[in-house]
Amino acid sequence: MPAASHPFARRIGGLQPSTIREILKVTARPEVISFAGGLPAPELFPVEAVREAADQVLAEGGQGALQYGPSEGYLPLREWIAAELGSRAIHAAASEILVTVGSQQVLDLVGKLFLDPGDVILTENPTYLAAIQAFQVFEATFVPVPTDAQGLVPEALPELIRRHRPKFLYTIPNFQNPTGITLSAARRQTLARIAAEHRLAVVEDDPYGKLRYRGTDIAPVKHWDEAGQVLYASTFSKTIAPGLRLGWVAAPAELFCRLLVLKQAADLHTSSFDQRVAHRYLTSNPQAPHLERIRHAYGERYAVMDQALGCELPAGFTWTRPEGGMFLWVSGPAELDSLKLLERSIAENVAFVPGRDFFPAEGGCNHFRLNFSNSSPERIREGVRRLGAICRSL
Amino acid sequence: MPAASHPFARRIGGLQPSTIREILKVTARPEVISFAGGLPAPELFPVEAVREAADQVLAEGGQGALQYGPSEGYLPLREWIAAELGSRAIHAAASEILVTVGSQQVLDLVGKLFLDPGDVILTENPTYLAAIQAFQVFEATFVPVPTDAQGLVPEALPELIRRHRPKFLYTIPNFQNPTGITLSAARRQTLARIAAEHRLAVVEDDPYGKLRYRGTDIAPVKHWDEAGQVLYASTFSKTIAPGLRLGWVAAPAELFCRLLVLKQAADLHTSSFDQRVAHRYLTSNPQAPHLERIRHAYGERYAVMDQALGCELPAGFTWTRPEGGMFLWVSGPAELDSLKLLERSIAENVAFVPGRDFFPAEGGCNHFRLNFSNSSPERIREGVRRLGAICRSL
Repeated sequence: MPAASHPFARRIGGLQPSTIREILKVTARPEVISFAGGLPAPELFPVEAVREAADQVLAEGGQGALQYGPSEGYLPLREWIAAELGSRAIHAAASEILVTVGSQQVLDLVGKLFLDPGDVILTENPTYLAAIQAFQVFEATFVPVPTDAQGLVPEALPELIRRHRPKFLYTIPNFQNPTGITLSAARRQTLARIAAEHRLAVVEDDPYGKLRYRGTDIAPVKHWDEAGQVLYASTFSKTIAPGLRLGWVAAPAELFCRLLVLKQAADLHTSSFDQRVAHRYLTSNPQAPHLERIRHAYGERYAVMDQALGCELPAGFTWTRPEGGMFLWVSGPAELDSLKLLERSIAENVAFVPGRDFFPAEGGCNHFRLNFSNSSPERIREGVRRLGAICRSL
Repeated sequence: MPAASHPFARRIGGLQPSTIREILKVTARPEVISFAGGLPAPELFPVEAVREAADQVLAEGGQGALQYGPSEGYLPLREWIAAELGSRAIHAAASEILVTVGSQQVLDLVGKLFLDPGDVILTENPTYLAAIQAFQVFEATFVPVPTDAQGLVPEALPELIRRHRPKFLYTIPNFQNPTGITLSAARRQTLARIAAEHRLAVVEDDPYGKLRYRGTDIAPVKHWDEAGQVLYASTFSKTIAPGLRLGWVAAPAELFCRLLVLKQAADLHTSSFDQRVAHRYLTSNPQAPHLERIRHAYGERYAVMDQALGCELPAGFTWTRPEGGMFLWVSGPAELDSLKLLERSIAENVAFVPGRDFFPAEGGCNHFRLNFSNSSPERIREGVRRLGAICRSL
């Protein structure tokens, strides 16, 4: 077929298949120790409990579970989510919860809600790669917010708002992807205050909040949101399983109505079946012990990786010490080319994601992201051993 | 919250919650005989077979079914779809099949692929209401293609292409929603030829093709597409069940790659679980007898509605005689206001969808759409009796 056969298709600058997903294809071979993906540990999925839930849902209300449903989502699930948000110090009514196809879809809907070509978004730098992709579809311009070990610096926002007139701030306050950094409690409160004062919409993405393995929970930015400026997105991908593709956004009423229309236009609604299976699972099984198992396993894997990095990486390499989540972030010497490091690592059957693609604005190539949730402690030790040997030989 | 609290959100002209979905809320009361929705008959859903499939999927490969999966879709399901397309006279490789969240999501992805604000789309007039919504998100301009009882008139296309430079043609050739009209075989071939000559992309939406209850199947436009101009969308919503939200698009390779990137940005991928359940169901149960049951039931319901309309509607009303699908289209006298008719009908516990919202361009208010798939023959007779009484009293 001639390359010019579709001359009318849009050329979206920078939008390419995710490096991660391309790497994942290479690393599907079982002999590869992959720290690349963002996969939860499948051996912790509650397969039998989901199986029972699916069976009961179809036995007791199969026709409803397989029929079209409301674009808002399955009401009992929305009610469950609203109640659960209470445990996160968020007060949201079920009527403010929109169920989505993973929290990734929230980013797509938010992009549609706010973005015209060239519009500015404020983000951490680096930030979640698939958020960059989602917003690039709408031809957004990314402006980084200064960050340090406590997360983004809210005091920098007023000047950025004045200069760039951003449509919103996108932030991952808990165990950020890719850095693992957590925004401090004081900064969350300051951020909410500044957002209210400047009428800055905040998209708070919290996929990992329930995965804290040390330290104590910090209330979300949404907790401080009296002005209705914060859209809070989360997901069941890490607490039940990602294959069900169930996420949600808690949105102020004014924005909820518009997101709902966009959801309807995007796919009518999220799977009726998956929503009911999740709801049945959640109401039939205590969540605390299940989450405790995940946190324990991820905490152990993090500790093994942290210790192994300490033993194996040469001087000049540093890394973050997250208190939860699935990732940590390694920074090498300024001259490190993490793409070349990846090539050599893959030859040794170890994979990770080079840092470059996580930077929507400027950012060095001397970083890379390591996932610790999807490998056993033994494989983490062995993978870091190989990685360390390569780094020491550079 | 003040109305101006989100001054930056886009104002998308014309984009409102679908009238249908608003009506559906009113008609959820069991005493309402609703010809309004586009719901399949739930009593024909293969609930027990889906239940067995779900159980086997989780028993035999639960971790994979609940894990993240490829954005393209579950490969065995894509292979099944590609093989099944052969029975529709379409030659497509599994590598050209993208699994989506219902075929509605195809419209969203196609909109993102092609549309900048103000871009022109050619459509039948009237056309599928949720397609209008999906494309309005991208601020498309709709230009109607002349149609008659054989569907759109392809000979009108070259002049429309010359004058409007459309990004694509959106068409539903089989049992169109809302009119029930089917595009003739000769016109499909002509359409494919003109699309190739003028490099016009064609989005062929075929949700109802398997629901033909009389006459013989006609090869899709995609069958004639040697130039790689046709994107063919379809769904399991009418052949298995809509609650699983499983659709697909068969796209020429060049466009497939770009749709894949957009799919990834939109929601990473479609539910791994639902895809595997559908695949297991499809490969464990013969489809022919199940489809035959659906076709028989819908054919009977259509015949009952057609006969009842003949008995009950006064002079000046005409309606289409579809050979398949789920809808027929009633046209009243020029002065009929179908919105007012709806108000009176709802007072008598009968609902339908007024025609106005199906017209992206000009179109009269004297039409309405009737669904016959979701009501029993008895309720169809009673509903049409009440509707006829109101029409005769106008």
